[in-house]
Amino acid sequence: MKILILGGDGYLGWPTAMHFAAAGDEVWVADNFAKRKWELEDGIEPLLPIPTLHRRVQRWNGMNAGAPVRMKVGDLTNHRFVYNLLREVGPEVIVHYGEQPSAPYSMQGRTAAVMTQQNNVVGNLNLLFAMQRHCPDAHLVKLGTMGEYGTPNIDIEEGWLDVEHNGRTDRVLFPKKAGSFYHLSKVHDSHNIEFACRVWGMRATDLNQGVVYGIDTDQTMLHPELRTSFHYDHVFGTVLNRFLVQACIGVPLTVYGRGGQTRGFLNIRDTLACVDLAARNPAESGEFRIFNQFTEQFSIGRLAEMVVAAGTRAGLAVTVAHLDNPRVEAEEHYFNAKHTKLPDLGLQPTLLTDAVIDQMLATVREQVDRVDPDIIAPQIRWAGGDISAPNR
Amino acid sequence: MKILILGGDGYLGWPTAMHFAAAGDEVWVADNFAKRKWELEDGIEPLLPIPTLHRRVQRWNGMNAGAPVRMKVGDLTNHRFVYNLLREVGPEVIVHYGEQPSAPYSMQGRTAAVMTQQNNVVGNLNLLFAMQRHCPDAHLVKLGTMGEYGTPNIDIEEGWLDVEHNGRTDRVLFPKKAGSFYHLSKVHDSHNIEFACRVWGMRATDLNQGVVYGIDTDQTMLHPELRTSFHYDHVFGTVLNRFLVQACIGVPLTVYGRGGQTRGFLNIRDTLACVDLAARNPAESGEFRIFNQFTEQFSIGRLAEMVVAAGTRAGLAVTVAHLDNPRVEAEEHYFNAKHTKLPDLGLQPTLLTDAVIDQMLATVREQVDRVDPDIIAPQIRWAGGDISAPNR
Repeated sequence: MKILILGGDGYLGWPTAMHFAAAGDEVWVADNFAKRKWELEDGIEPLLPIPTLHRRVQRWNGMNAGAPVRMKVGDLTNHRFVYNLLREVGPEVIVHYGEQPSAPYSMQGRTAAVMTQQNNVVGNLNLLFAMQRHCPDAHLVKLGTMGEYGTPNIDIEEGWLDVEHNGRTDRVLFPKKAGSFYHLSKVHDSHNIEFACRVWGMRATDLNQGVVYGIDTDQTMLHPELRTSFHYDHVFGTVLNRFLVQACIGVPLTVYGRGGQTRGFLNIRDTLACVDLAARNPAESGEFRIFNQFTEQFSIGRLAEMVVAAGTRAGLAVTVAHLDNPRVEAEEHYFNAKHTKLPDLGLQPTLLTDAVIDQMLATVREQVDRVDPDIIAPQIRWAGGDISAPNR
Repeated sequence: MKILILGGDGYLGWPTAMHFAAAGDEVWVADNFAKRKWELEDGIEPLLPIPTLHRRVQRWNGMNAGAPVRMKVGDLTNHRFVYNLLREVGPEVIVHYGEQPSAPYSMQGRTAAVMTQQNNVVGNLNLLFAMQRHCPDAHLVKLGTMGEYGTPNIDIEEGWLDVEHNGRTDRVLFPKKAGSFYHLSKVHDSHNIEFACRVWGMRATDLNQGVVYGIDTDQTMLHPELRTSFHYDHVFGTVLNRFLVQACIGVPLTVYGRGGQTRGFLNIRDTLACVDLAARNPAESGEFRIFNQFTEQFSIGRLAEMVVAAGTRAGLAVTVAHLDNPRVEAEEHYFNAKHTKLPDLGLQPTLLTDAVIDQMLATVREQVDRVDPDIIAPQIRWAGGDISAPNR
């Protein structure tokens, strides 16, 4: 299978590239390194330094651990780059991770909000048009997020909802109430992709992914230079990663508000497994298929309890602090999101067992001297408006 | 009331400005004249030449027909223009017509599609942030379109839908399946505005407008230089206007496909009445209110029959031609869209009676020598992809 990974320098993009290369697929990656620039804007570094993509590709290709990875450097908002890329590569599958990925980043103010929507929506539109021109039969696997749905008081279906209303029925896109300008950019993308499938007969799978945690995959563990980024900061860090770092450096776990916010979670290994299943079981021509990509759901408060327990097992005294919520979100709500389509294709989840959390805690603890404690506390307020971050 | 009309040079913007000025309100208009440039790109002119906005404002202000209109020239995608405008004007109501308004325009290819979404979405985001900064209590009256909904097999409610699903209930945004990249830009806007209301407590009314027809309002008739644009072309012309021109020049009415497409329609006079009602009955703080703004619904085939009948009454032999549909849309479908909220506020509709259609036909017939027959036939194909118009 010839597969192109957009955003191949990222937390998920790089492990995905190695995963398919290890399986013998023909893998291309593309990136513009915008994420590394966005990190610089907020003074943020991942826990361990990440070699350049060039260096990682060279290292992988020298290891004989699978097929080689080829790389291209360019920006999806430059349509000539996208057209040339698809013409040259001719992919059968395109995995699109190449977007601004952070809700807090998008809420720093007008500049960041507009950049996020422009970057993500225009990049995705360029991709749709370039596919329609150069590889109309290719399968687009697009990364979305569970945060597009918000927290409705009804069960969240996988993208489409069968509605009965006034005695008539239809199958409609699941109505969304996204949680940030970033999440909204993904909602806009999904609407644009559904239209491309409907009007041009394209095939696409939208993966509405939960909160990803985890450090290692089978391939990142092969060599230190093959590692992927681990963010624990207030902009790009996800909640479990942040809690583990807080536990290790001996500061309270920062729960935003009451902690009743319930979300879907998955291990980074399962991200790779889900993308693999989507890629090897493509959508039909004209089909806009949506999977909810997570394996279990917890409240943030429950997650904090799990980290406290893991800390206790490791001999750490871990406490929890409830901060004023910097976000505008329901802190207690109904949440029941369906996620059967990927298991139906064969997903075997890696759940958040004590063993998994203990292993993550131990790995972070080895690097505790590298933690920058000043980049953890939330600094971006959802209600702030056009300048909502201290350095903006 | 201090009211700012964005897109004040347009078909609806200019009559709206005069309407409020005639009522004694303090009216400001802003425009960047992008629409006139888009017309040039496709070699399109309105039936009668339209004086510059400067000239029309000067004419209006010299007529003592109401309060003066003040104008500003600038682009909503330039956020500094928007911030300065709102700071200087301090409006109580903002009526936002300032977007690329044509579905066919947006379907000419990648360049037009991306420009449409970038222009509309970024302009609207800049407006939201500037309002949040300079006039957070102002009421945003945003023009959307019924084309955002598509043609669902269930009744179309006014923006929000009460859903029961698996024994639980919620009130959700009505699910949308828009008909073009233009319509999608309005869907994106609506999601962004709903978020701004939810997170910042803004107040907004989204007017999902049907297809507008009509030439005159009470104010445009006061002087030839106060007229508004009348488009009958394949890009900016709406269907009834086009049919009337075709009837007058003796060519068949061009129905796309079978003609079973049903849409909501309204007279331009009712657009002004609806915007007036929305502006004088503002949404609550934090409320995202949605009205379906049309007065009656017809199929395109039925509309053609009405123009044939009007032609017969006027002594014209009018025929109908069914063209291959350049759009991708259902040609036979269920369509029942609610539209009670504006009548509940007091709207007295101007329906498409024989007298109204005969008057429009007579007005167009006086200008029959000005018609350019080469700009009427559809030239933009929905399924065409990245270059879907002959001059792109």
